[in-house]
Amino acid sequence: MTANDPIASLISLLSRLPGIGERTAARLAFFVLEGDAQYAAALGQALSTVHEEVTRCELCGNYGAESRCGICQDPRRDESVVCVVAKVPDLIALEALGSFRGRYHVLHGLLAPLDGVGPDQLPLDALERRITEHAVKEIIVATPLNVEGEATALYVADALSPLPVRVSRIAAGVPHGGELEFTDQVTLGRALEDRRAVR
Amino acid sequence: MTANDPIASLISLLSRLPGIGERTAARLAFFVLEGDAQYAAALGQALSTVHEEVTRCELCGNYGAESRCGICQDPRRDESVVCVVAKVPDLIALEALGSFRGRYHVLHGLLAPLDGVGPDQLPLDALERRITEHAVKEIIVATPLNVEGEATALYVADALSPLPVRVSRIAAGVPHGGELEFTDQVTLGRALEDRRAVR
Repeated sequence: MTANDPIASLISLLSRLPGIGERTAARLAFFVLEGDAQYAAALGQALSTVHEEVTRCELCGNYGAESRCGICQDPRRDESVVCVVAKVPDLIALEALGSFRGRYHVLHGLLAPLDGVGPDQLPLDALERRITEHAVKEIIVATPLNVEGEATALYVADALSPLPVRVSRIAAGVPHGGELEFTDQVTLGRALEDRRAVR
Repeated sequence: MTANDPIASLISLLSRLPGIGERTAARLAFFVLEGDAQYAAALGQALSTVHEEVTRCELCGNYGAESRCGICQDPRRDESVVCVVAKVPDLIALEALGSFRGRYHVLHGLLAPLDGVGPDQLPLDALERRITEHAVKEIIVATPLNVEGEATALYVADALSPLPVRVSRIAAGVPHGGELEFTDQVTLGRALEDRRAVR
């Protein structure tokens, strides 16, 4: 193959994707090359334009094609309950449940002082403004259950304490189908501590 | 999210790639969206144009940017030895060895009568022409060691029997590092049958 080889450069670009090694990249490149030309063009077009076509919702930070995302535009969604998430994939996971009818606030990050991410990098001003302007009654903090997620949840609760809003945190506990025998001590300790009355 | 959502359509296109499920596709889409815009544009461009920029070499069937591939254009490659492979990734695997200095002939398929692939679909006329016109002395059949690969190898050897050319087949045997205990019976049988003298 020549130095200026379009397949080699496609393989090299594909192998920069997360979790895609050289071998998988080659498999994908040959799949695209030997497959439908229309599909290759559509995928290429979608990748080329995604940065221009997708914007962050000016209200909640979710991704969308317009300045307000579909959820913020939907009048059936309850704007008095706002679920705070670290990133858009977490929002998508919650939406897949189909049971949450409130709105979201995407932080696009978590407090990580060691990586230089302080409270100023999180859009908490915007959240405070939403609470005041849209008469938000409850904030559900759905950041992950790890060190950064917990620290961020504490910080959010603290920052919102002067405002007349209820702040809750998603439950920590033994996951569905989880064997107590193989559950880590922190999870088991919290499951015991946060036990709920059944009668 | 709205119906005409660029992220959702990107995820859906990515999930049509082999071995890429819905979840991985979402991870890749967010990686591209939240990463470098130049990278997204370059990857999109490479995918969009790969069908136009890549052609099959008119001599050997390998992929390249010109009508003759880099290997066929390289005067240092020995044109008297031609290695027959089923597909371009197999050629790339052999090239990665760095030890084969001959040329290739890519079949872009294997005999598979049950799937309707007969001898007419394989470019054997072109191979016969190469043998006569380029004074090829040896054909190494490097099709895979499975049913279709073996059937194709037999067919190629048979089709070339009227021509003054040596036809060889890559060795079958126990792979490097292979434990005899865990080697299948067909492989072990062939390794025994094709044993070579050591002194």
